[in-house]
Amino acid sequence: MSPTITAFERSPDRGRGLARDMPVRWAFEEVGRPYDVRLVSFSEMKASAHRALNPFGQIPTYQEGDLSLFESGAIVLHLAQHYSGLLPSDANARARAITWMFAAVSTMEPPIVDLGTAVIIERNESWYEQRLPMVKDRIRHRLRELSAHLGEADWLDGTFSAGDLLMVSVLRRLHASGLLKEYQNLSAYVARGEARPAFRRAFAAQLAVFTAAPTG
Amino acid sequence: MSPTITAFERSPDRGRGLARDMPVRWAFEEVGRPYDVRLVSFSEMKASAHRALNPFGQIPTYQEGDLSLFESGAIVLHLAQHYSGLLPSDANARARAITWMFAAVSTMEPPIVDLGTAVIIERNESWYEQRLPMVKDRIRHRLRELSAHLGEADWLDGTFSAGDLLMVSVLRRLHASGLLKEYQNLSAYVARGEARPAFRRAFAAQLAVFTAAPTG
Repeated sequence: MSPTITAFERSPDRGRGLARDMPVRWAFEEVGRPYDVRLVSFSEMKASAHRALNPFGQIPTYQEGDLSLFESGAIVLHLAQHYSGLLPSDANARARAITWMFAAVSTMEPPIVDLGTAVIIERNESWYEQRLPMVKDRIRHRLRELSAHLGEADWLDGTFSAGDLLMVSVLRRLHASGLLKEYQNLSAYVARGEARPAFRRAFAAQLAVFTAAPTG
Repeated sequence: MSPTITAFERSPDRGRGLARDMPVRWAFEEVGRPYDVRLVSFSEMKASAHRALNPFGQIPTYQEGDLSLFESGAIVLHLAQHYSGLLPSDANARARAITWMFAAVSTMEPPIVDLGTAVIIERNESWYEQRLPMVKDRIRHRLRELSAHLGEADWLDGTFSAGDLLMVSVLRRLHASGLLKEYQNLSAYVARGEARPAFRRAFAAQLAVFTAAPTG
C-alpha cells in the first residue's frame, strides 16, 4: 500500500503549487514512488482527528502503516533516506545536502513567509506600507548571500538533492513579489528546478485538485 | 581529533545560552563526545573565509576532517545520527523525532524569532507598540497547540530526543517575554530540559566564553 499524504481540499494559492504538499509530492516523483492523497477541508484540519496526525493542524501529513509524520521538511527527508534520488551516496555530501534542507526551512524561509504574512494579514494595518521595505530588505539580504554561494553552479552542492528541492520550493514563494528577478542566477536556479520532470508531474497533480474543485 | 564548532567571541545574549552554538554544545554533551570551539568576531563571521563554511555568515559551523556543515539543526541531526543518545533506535520513533526537529525550527521558531526581531530592530519604529500584540498572539497560537500536544507528558514523543533538544532551545528564547509562563506544562517542559546534566554542562561552557571575555 502506498503512503497517504494530506493536502488542501481548496488550496488558498489556487493551484500555484505553494502549499506545503507540493515539496512532498515533488519528492515522491523524484524517487519514483506512488502516493495517495487525502484532501482535507479547513475545518477538518483544525479538528482533533487531524491534530492527532499534526498537532499544529496543518497539511501535509504522511501516513504509512502505523507511521505518521508531519512537517514537509521531515517527510522529504524521510523519503530521501529511504529511496534513492534525493541524497548523494557519499556520507559527507549527504550531510551537506541535509544542511541545505535546514538552511531552506530555517534560514531562507522565515523572512519569506514574513512577507507573505504581511501581504495577507497586515495589508490593512496602518504600518503596512511603511514596514514593507524593511521586510523585503531582510529577504534581499539572504538572497544576496545565497546568490553569492550559488554563483554559476546548477545546484547548491554538486548534484540535485533534497536540499535543492526544499530551497527551490521556498524561493518559489517569491515569484509574486518580483524579488527573485533581482538575482539572475537564483531565478535561473528556480527555473531549473521547475523544469524537472518530477516537479512538473507534482505541479500538475496539485493543480488538478484545484481545477477539479467545485467553484461554489 | 575532535570536531570544531564556531561560536561568538562576544555573544549578543551575554551568556544566556540563546546563541545557536548552544543546541550544538548541548547535543555534544548528550552524546558524550568532546568538541573544540573556535571563537569568531562579528567581522570574521562576515569575511569570506567564514562564508566558505557558512554562506550566510553565521555561527555555528562544524568541521571534522574534510567535512564542513552549518545550520544548528543539521549539525544536531548529524551528531544524533552518528552517536547514540539523541534518537530512538526504533525506525518509526526515529522518524517522528526528526519530525519534531523540523517542527521546532520551521513551525515554532519563526514567530518567536519575529518577536526578537521586533524587539531588537523595530523597537524605535512608529508601528512597534501597535504591532507587538499581533506578533505575540501568533506565538500564543503555536504555544497553545504545542501545549495541547504535550499534555502531561515529559517529552514530545516518548523519551528525550533531538526533537526535544531543539524545541526546548527554541522555547528558551521566550523567557524574557513572559509568554512561556502562560503555559504551565510548557514552562515545566523547558525547565526539565534545562535541568539535564548535559544542558548544564553546555550552558556553563558557553557562559564561560562570556565571563572570560575582556569587557573593553
